[in-house]
Amino acid sequence: MRSILILGAGRSAASLIQYLIKHAAAQAWRITVADKDPSHAAMLVAEGPSVATGFALDATDAGARAALIAKHDVVISMLPAFMHLDVLKDCLSLKKHVITPSYVPDALWPMDADFKAAGLTVLNEMGLDPGIDHMSAMRILDRIRAEGGRMEAFESYCGGLVAPESDDNPWGYKFSWNPRNVVLAGQGGAAKYIRDGETKYIPYHQLFRQTVRVEVEGFGAFDGYANRDSLKYRSHYGLDEIPTLLRGTLRKAGYCEAWNTFVQLGCTEDGFAMELPEKASWSAYLDAFLPHCQECGTRGNLARYLGLKEDGEVMRKLDWLGLFSNSPIGVTGKSPAATLQHLLEQKWKLGVNDKDMVVMWHRFRYAVEGQHQAIHASLGVIGEDRLHTAMARTVGLPIAMACKHLLNGTIQERGVLLPLKPVIYGPILEELEQHGIRFTEEEVEA
Amino acid sequence: MRSILILGAGRSAASLIQYLIKHAAAQAWRITVADKDPSHAAMLVAEGPSVATGFALDATDAGARAALIAKHDVVISMLPAFMHLDVLKDCLSLKKHVITPSYVPDALWPMDADFKAAGLTVLNEMGLDPGIDHMSAMRILDRIRAEGGRMEAFESYCGGLVAPESDDNPWGYKFSWNPRNVVLAGQGGAAKYIRDGETKYIPYHQLFRQTVRVEVEGFGAFDGYANRDSLKYRSHYGLDEIPTLLRGTLRKAGYCEAWNTFVQLGCTEDGFAMELPEKASWSAYLDAFLPHCQECGTRGNLARYLGLKEDGEVMRKLDWLGLFSNSPIGVTGKSPAATLQHLLEQKWKLGVNDKDMVVMWHRFRYAVEGQHQAIHASLGVIGEDRLHTAMARTVGLPIAMACKHLLNGTIQERGVLLPLKPVIYGPILEELEQHGIRFTEEEVEA
Repeated sequence: MRSILILGAGRSAASLIQYLIKHAAAQAWRITVADKDPSHAAMLVAEGPSVATGFALDATDAGARAALIAKHDVVISMLPAFMHLDVLKDCLSLKKHVITPSYVPDALWPMDADFKAAGLTVLNEMGLDPGIDHMSAMRILDRIRAEGGRMEAFESYCGGLVAPESDDNPWGYKFSWNPRNVVLAGQGGAAKYIRDGETKYIPYHQLFRQTVRVEVEGFGAFDGYANRDSLKYRSHYGLDEIPTLLRGTLRKAGYCEAWNTFVQLGCTEDGFAMELPEKASWSAYLDAFLPHCQECGTRGNLARYLGLKEDGEVMRKLDWLGLFSNSPIGVTGKSPAATLQHLLEQKWKLGVNDKDMVVMWHRFRYAVEGQHQAIHASLGVIGEDRLHTAMARTVGLPIAMACKHLLNGTIQERGVLLPLKPVIYGPILEELEQHGIRFTEEEVEA
Repeated sequence: MRSILILGAGRSAASLIQYLIKHAAAQAWRITVADKDPSHAAMLVAEGPSVATGFALDATDAGARAALIAKHDVVISMLPAFMHLDVLKDCLSLKKHVITPSYVPDALWPMDADFKAAGLTVLNEMGLDPGIDHMSAMRILDRIRAEGGRMEAFESYCGGLVAPESDDNPWGYKFSWNPRNVVLAGQGGAAKYIRDGETKYIPYHQLFRQTVRVEVEGFGAFDGYANRDSLKYRSHYGLDEIPTLLRGTLRKAGYCEAWNTFVQLGCTEDGFAMELPEKASWSAYLDAFLPHCQECGTRGNLARYLGLKEDGEVMRKLDWLGLFSNSPIGVTGKSPAATLQHLLEQKWKLGVNDKDMVVMWHRFRYAVEGQHQAIHASLGVIGEDRLHTAMARTVGLPIAMACKHLLNGTIQERGVLLPLKPVIYGPILEELEQHGIRFTEEEVEA
């Protein structure tokens, strides 16, 4: 028997745990799911009572955490990013392999030699984005290079969205993951990318203006806005010489133009508590960001201030959120961003019967023997239900598969890893296809 | 004999020291000017060799600093704000009065009781802004209240500018103080003010759009943009009930619209080092913030991106800075803001024969027995020469006068003070008038 510990059973853990339970007997696995909320952990292991156990754990309790880790062969950490490093240090000292969907923290790279010396693997960025993005990009990049191609441009976009069949609001958006991250998306510094060899910068307040239209057949039309640092993986992908490199996030076409209203007004600022009267209305919330105008009214004032059409599509989206209404905000003393989030969590809630959707889109341009060529690769995944969302499946399944390969010895490399090599991405992308997570490739004119 | 120690002999210290030297014999003062650069200190005390001495001091050397403070009766700290608290702690333990032009650090208020118990005065915000703004506002506010007036609105603007006679560039601006602060002005969070009882917020990227036109007879027309926190002094000024309160900064009319170009592009961001090729030109600097456009050229691309007229006034200002030229930037690896500052320090340098200017403008609206009334109060000061700039005079003279009143016992209040009471502002504003620093008041229709 090999034992697997899952730390943190949040939104993305359901499909991961389901896969592990399903393969537990054949693979001789014992599974422990540890979460702050024991009833949540119990619910997730209910499908496999003979192979999986729920466990109540406050992961910030270092002693309890280490005691539990010590009893397992491999750890899958689904904890929030800030807890990541503590768990990794435990795994090093207790000599356990570990897999996470989180970004490699800067402080991890210097520990690479220690993990190698201990014969341990730390497999990071093993979910959707980061995760499937790396694997699907590297598979095509390796193929292009094997054909003697020289990369000219690589653009890659991903979004966690709502499925077309459940898309019943004018924003085309519902929350399938952390709402706070959606509201604060793009903050923290200018976005950086390269275009024709020039490094370009987009400050936050221009981010939702500078979008790229992406169409994915069968899944819809989207706006892509640039991620903070498109160059982060340039070296990892072997693209140090590439002249154009951009990574971004997808929202449904039209979303970004409307979201830009919030950015322009300052509604997404998170650094101060607003001073609004108790029982203030949503239109008073908007007023706080608008210049004084005695006769305008909130709608007219906003339209004039930002150059919007009063009967246009952006206004229709704001209207649908109730932002021009007299209904009370319901929270006080929060930042503009947290106040807005409070509204959006009500309006953009994924309903009981709603399905979410994940879309990923890559564009590769390259030259082989002087001939310019291009490939578009796209992925669309619709969620199965409220638990096994597209997000949970695309984040969780690759982790579960990586766990299998690590325990079975297919993955033998030790140290701090991303899923960039064929030995990792090959079998996992193949198995994902059996689960309906399949990229469509298209050769297009360059 | 009473001894006065001036710590830090930067740009704003010249007129302060000149005043102290001039009154030293009559007041029985001994003056020590301590600066990192002994030749600079020596230059400033050269006018009064019998009463004033220069001294080389690295003010971060706690031992040397304390030893020097111990030998004096009162300390005037002109050091950068971050050194402020260390000096104040020294003064408390060594039992010295202290005067500064700096903002009260948050950590100082809790020390108020200790300073009082020790019989010491810490007189802060004693320069121009903060300083003369407090004194001139309180003089009028106290008068309005004495007449039974109820304040309805108070707006106050101040700017350190270039004198009309030395204004020979299209921006109407030259540096008379810290260039870095000018480039980063307005950053660090939304500006906050109140208008008709509503708290309003302006995010940084809208700050230079939401300006107020201010005309000061004899000194010109200006744009005022809001300071970060207009409400900071609401309680200090006794204005807790006022429905409209705004404090701001003045630039010459037209400056803000053009400066907004830099804000919109992201040129004033300070959080990352730009990756520009060595020998990159200023037009490549702009290109880094512009979307790709094969055929546009920098000028056309910028005009299109920000909706500017190619032959308009904003473009003329950018042109004058050489931003569309092929001349090399001359620095690398700096933030966008620091790179821009490098250019502006060359272009906006106050020439040897240039004079600077300080402008302050207050608007008071109030009601007496149901009658609405308004007062405009304005101050314009032209510098005398490169040393005794308007900035040095308006910052330094009130400090010097406060020092006199503190040593002579006119100021008897102890503890942490701002210059808000008649016993301080009365004699100082009066004496400033003898130095040509005089407000013009005008009753206008409310």
